[in-house]
Amino acid sequence: MPRGINKRGWHYITNNTDESRHSEDKLSFYGAHNFLLVRDGSTCFGLFVDFPGKVYYDIGYTRHDLFSFHTETPDYDLYLLSGGNENAICKEFRTLIGRSYIPPKWAFGLAQSRWGYKTEEDVREVARQYKEHDLPLDMICMDIEYMQDYADFTVNKERFPDLAKLSADLKAQGIRLVPIIDAGVRIDPNDPTCTEGLEKGYFCTKADGTPFVAAVWPGKAYFADFLRPEVREWFGHKYKALTDCGIEGFWNDMNEPSLFYSPERLRAFLNDMAALREKDNIEQEEFFPRVVGGAMGLMNSPADYASFYHEVDGQKVRHDQVHNLYGGSMTRAAGEAFADLRPGQRTLLYSRSSFIGSHRYGGIWLGDNNSSWAQLLANIQMMPSVQMCGFLYSGADLCGFSSDTTPDLALRWLEFGLLTPLMRNHSAVGTRMQEYYRFPEVLPAVRNMIRLRYALLPYLYSEFMKAALENTSYFRPLAFDYPDDPDAREVEDQLLLGEGLMAAPVYVQNAHGRHVYLPEPMKLLRLRAVDDYDEEILPAGHHYIRCALDEVLLFLRPGHIVPVAQPANNTSELDDASLTLWSFLPDGESAEYRMYRDDGVTTEYEKKEHWKTLQIHHS
Amino acid sequence: MPRGINKRGWHYITNNTDESRHSEDKLSFYGAHNFLLVRDGSTCFGLFVDFPGKVYYDIGYTRHDLFSFHTETPDYDLYLLSGGNENAICKEFRTLIGRSYIPPKWAFGLAQSRWGYKTEEDVREVARQYKEHDLPLDMICMDIEYMQDYADFTVNKERFPDLAKLSADLKAQGIRLVPIIDAGVRIDPNDPTCTEGLEKGYFCTKADGTPFVAAVWPGKAYFADFLRPEVREWFGHKYKALTDCGIEGFWNDMNEPSLFYSPERLRAFLNDMAALREKDNIEQEEFFPRVVGGAMGLMNSPADYASFYHEVDGQKVRHDQVHNLYGGSMTRAAGEAFADLRPGQRTLLYSRSSFIGSHRYGGIWLGDNNSSWAQLLANIQMMPSVQMCGFLYSGADLCGFSSDTTPDLALRWLEFGLLTPLMRNHSAVGTRMQEYYRFPEVLPAVRNMIRLRYALLPYLYSEFMKAALENTSYFRPLAFDYPDDPDAREVEDQLLLGEGLMAAPVYVQNAHGRHVYLPEPMKLLRLRAVDDYDEEILPAGHHYIRCALDEVLLFLRPGHIVPVAQPANNTSELDDASLTLWSFLPDGESAEYRMYRDDGVTTEYEKKEHWKTLQIHHS
Repeated sequence: MPRGINKRGWHYITNNTDESRHSEDKLSFYGAHNFLLVRDGSTCFGLFVDFPGKVYYDIGYTRHDLFSFHTETPDYDLYLLSGGNENAICKEFRTLIGRSYIPPKWAFGLAQSRWGYKTEEDVREVARQYKEHDLPLDMICMDIEYMQDYADFTVNKERFPDLAKLSADLKAQGIRLVPIIDAGVRIDPNDPTCTEGLEKGYFCTKADGTPFVAAVWPGKAYFADFLRPEVREWFGHKYKALTDCGIEGFWNDMNEPSLFYSPERLRAFLNDMAALREKDNIEQEEFFPRVVGGAMGLMNSPADYASFYHEVDGQKVRHDQVHNLYGGSMTRAAGEAFADLRPGQRTLLYSRSSFIGSHRYGGIWLGDNNSSWAQLLANIQMMPSVQMCGFLYSGADLCGFSSDTTPDLALRWLEFGLLTPLMRNHSAVGTRMQEYYRFPEVLPAVRNMIRLRYALLPYLYSEFMKAALENTSYFRPLAFDYPDDPDAREVEDQLLLGEGLMAAPVYVQNAHGRHVYLPEPMKLLRLRAVDDYDEEILPAGHHYIRCALDEVLLFLRPGHIVPVAQPANNTSELDDASLTLWSFLPDGESAEYRMYRDDGVTTEYEKKEHWKTLQIHHS
Repeated sequence: MPRGINKRGWHYITNNTDESRHSEDKLSFYGAHNFLLVRDGSTCFGLFVDFPGKVYYDIGYTRHDLFSFHTETPDYDLYLLSGGNENAICKEFRTLIGRSYIPPKWAFGLAQSRWGYKTEEDVREVARQYKEHDLPLDMICMDIEYMQDYADFTVNKERFPDLAKLSADLKAQGIRLVPIIDAGVRIDPNDPTCTEGLEKGYFCTKADGTPFVAAVWPGKAYFADFLRPEVREWFGHKYKALTDCGIEGFWNDMNEPSLFYSPERLRAFLNDMAALREKDNIEQEEFFPRVVGGAMGLMNSPADYASFYHEVDGQKVRHDQVHNLYGGSMTRAAGEAFADLRPGQRTLLYSRSSFIGSHRYGGIWLGDNNSSWAQLLANIQMMPSVQMCGFLYSGADLCGFSSDTTPDLALRWLEFGLLTPLMRNHSAVGTRMQEYYRFPEVLPAVRNMIRLRYALLPYLYSEFMKAALENTSYFRPLAFDYPDDPDAREVEDQLLLGEGLMAAPVYVQNAHGRHVYLPEPMKLLRLRAVDDYDEEILPAGHHYIRCALDEVLLFLRPGHIVPVAQPANNTSELDDASLTLWSFLPDGESAEYRMYRDDGVTTEYEKKEHWKTLQIHHS
């Protein structure tokens, strides 16, 4: 949802929307996460509105002291969770909704992506440049260009003549390919996904029973009815075309679903423009609604969403009434099939659109964003919100997706992104190139920061696995651990990360420091690299802390240990047997750390031998 | 220009643009102010590019350590100003460009505005509600609805049957009417502005010599060629239709000029849509450029700006080459005429578009903005930038123009707005109503804050007059007064205000405090009202300072006095003979304050008797 960690003072609609501007005036973004925590003085409760359509919230917008919500039909299930503080209620909620998706360990490495890698050579060039510049890398994501005419489960043979070989060659370098799958199925009588889906009646239909059509990247497309189990099974097994090439990870996109236009509505608009042409004098009163509003209104039109149907238990259900289930159900289709296609193995999957429930099948990224400092702050503020709803494997497009990034924004965003489970640099075609080797001025610092990510993986991965297996949060607002501290409750730009760390990212251009609030004494680490940092023990309270462009601020909480490895070129080369322990043990006391180590690829998460206890004893 | 006080790390184009989103990714806003201060270590210089067309800046965007600019043609005048610190260079620049516009004193009162006051009764209702709620008010602005068919210098007689009487009735209550004048002249054979302008050949022309036509609010319109002195004189004297009704103030709008569409380009678009209709299958590759891009591209089209001409010294000059002069020349037209229409009297005038030079004829507002916390911060950051370019009488649309405000945003924005010379609450049709009496929850605090503005007027008006008469700055970044303090140089959210005050506005939703940097010891005033505040002397350094929603933070600099009056219902009732003196005199030392008092309406600014010295003696 838009705005800060504290949602008070605005109104919101959970209505999955392809909205790349994460600005304050928006009401809806990509996910429908109807779980909120409400704190009223010393009491706290959780509120979960289980509903597949739009939920309207007024959170102190009309009146600062009133909270209300409503739906268009009253058939929602409302869960009120009480008994304890924010962490306890979140744990209760997470237990209720089921275990979060766990990706392979290599998915905690760095991913380089761009809408615009047109050929196999473009992809190999990224790998080569990363290697030449001595920058670690685990994944290269393939956007829509790898497909034939943007058709799902196809590969353009001219531009990607041998995907299996490309995948194997890169994997030998420790790099996985992660292709995109879009929601819309290209209409093409020669495309088996299209023809099979038509034959089986697996696509969403219009009121007259014919398949619903709207244009997206492949042009006119059908939309699989992911609400039906047999459709999910069919679509999910289509990924086999790519897993057979050695692909082990995917991203599901455009699955709100985003609709550019429906042919009917486009034709009506063109007819209206033709009619307007006949007028001698077009008044500006007609210009805005008919020309500008008409053209812009073609995209993601509510009228289109209300014009097609799903089949649920043999009944037709109009799409707009279950709109928020769509993207997550596509994720579920893939996730369910992977258990069959790759039994016992983890498959990377993250989705743009989501609802609570789809957190069991995949992670998410925070949707298309913008290369701006404001969206770096939005990234920081969204992380705990999506994680408390179960989307542990998550992150934003680092450097920003649309518009042009700058070297300093790229570096500052990386300094936060090196802490997010999904760590992906992604951008739109036509924007400034932003692979991490593109910025010679800040390259040494960028290298140090990516290497720091890898060095922190023993801690980050352990904390992620604790969050997944024990229904806790990887990122948390300070308010969760210090609910009785009014200053901590207001902090919107620092996050607790696992048991022992607090992050305080710099997100202001040209700043060489920032204010930080410590709810308790902590040890500051001002890191230029994993082995080059200043440390200082600071008392509780408000501090101004210097932080040059090439530095990142981490804080160790008292009594905690953070295990740190040597940096590696990719996760497979990471040596987590030889660790350095960072700690803040105020009175020379002892401490323990529960570290999680496994093979990182199989689904046997719960073996006791994965846990190892690290100790620092003071005598 | 977009972004913060420090412009480093982005690229910009001075190209006057109707752009209501003051977001980071933008390159151009409403004004063309080609004056920059460059600090390089211990030296500082000013750079003024005197050029009427687009100027392209790369300020550490391509490379962090490089600054460059260019124009499309090389015929610019470049002024390099050196010798001293920021304040000295700004003073040198201001001396070069001439004295800033000085409005009547009542223009320092509160203005209530909205696009949407349709009738005389709507206007009277605003005055009534302000009075009933005991809220001070000096001005009500009239947006385009007061006109007949949006035609300049007309009044709709049905909805405003007697403007002179309305003006007189309100003036008796201490409230002035401030009508809008738009740049485009409605095409209407019965409208004298239209017919006279045509007869005299005063409108901009196309290449074939016929008048250029584009649609704006009145529909198809002509555009006066304000670059010609005889056209300025003619257009400026048209304001007489309204000054004859007792009107003493105006705002000039839409004068970038903003163009909705030209008939030629709209017809071409409609033809293209008709052609597209003939195709059986419209690919999405055509949809974005032709349909969406085509419709959106009609507005403020560069092709339109390159299609019409001015006459300068008998030569045709293409508009786009002198685009940035247009709005400011309209302001000049009005300002020059007022000297004749209202000799010896000050007339309120502020403009949306501007260039350096037009600061001599009117103030500016910061253009259409958005009801968001981000734009409150943008307001804070833009103020010193426009003021150092001579636009002293300036301010943003308080509460925000587009989208919906919230009660807390309205109050927090007022807490900053009460310090800006132009203090206007303005909003767009269709948005949440935001007159200051609309928010019962925060009404007492709103009332206290508006009253605080009036109480501060002896100081604010004196500081404004010093800035205008002595070429100093009313608002300044901390970097100007403390150039050797690296922490002060980084502060982007505090402003020095005149000689003795520093402002530190809260601009984060739900925050009950903020961090403040003091370059030297200062006395904190945490004000709930002019007579209800906490005070505390704080040492230099970084502080976290609590500030509840109904409080504002002001800081008194050492050795300074701030004269404060009793609040009044409007500026005419303000008693500045009986003053309270706020001061911070660290060692019990003495101090003086130079206060400016005049009649506030005539143009005899420079009389010695306007200055009075207030003193605090300690013995």
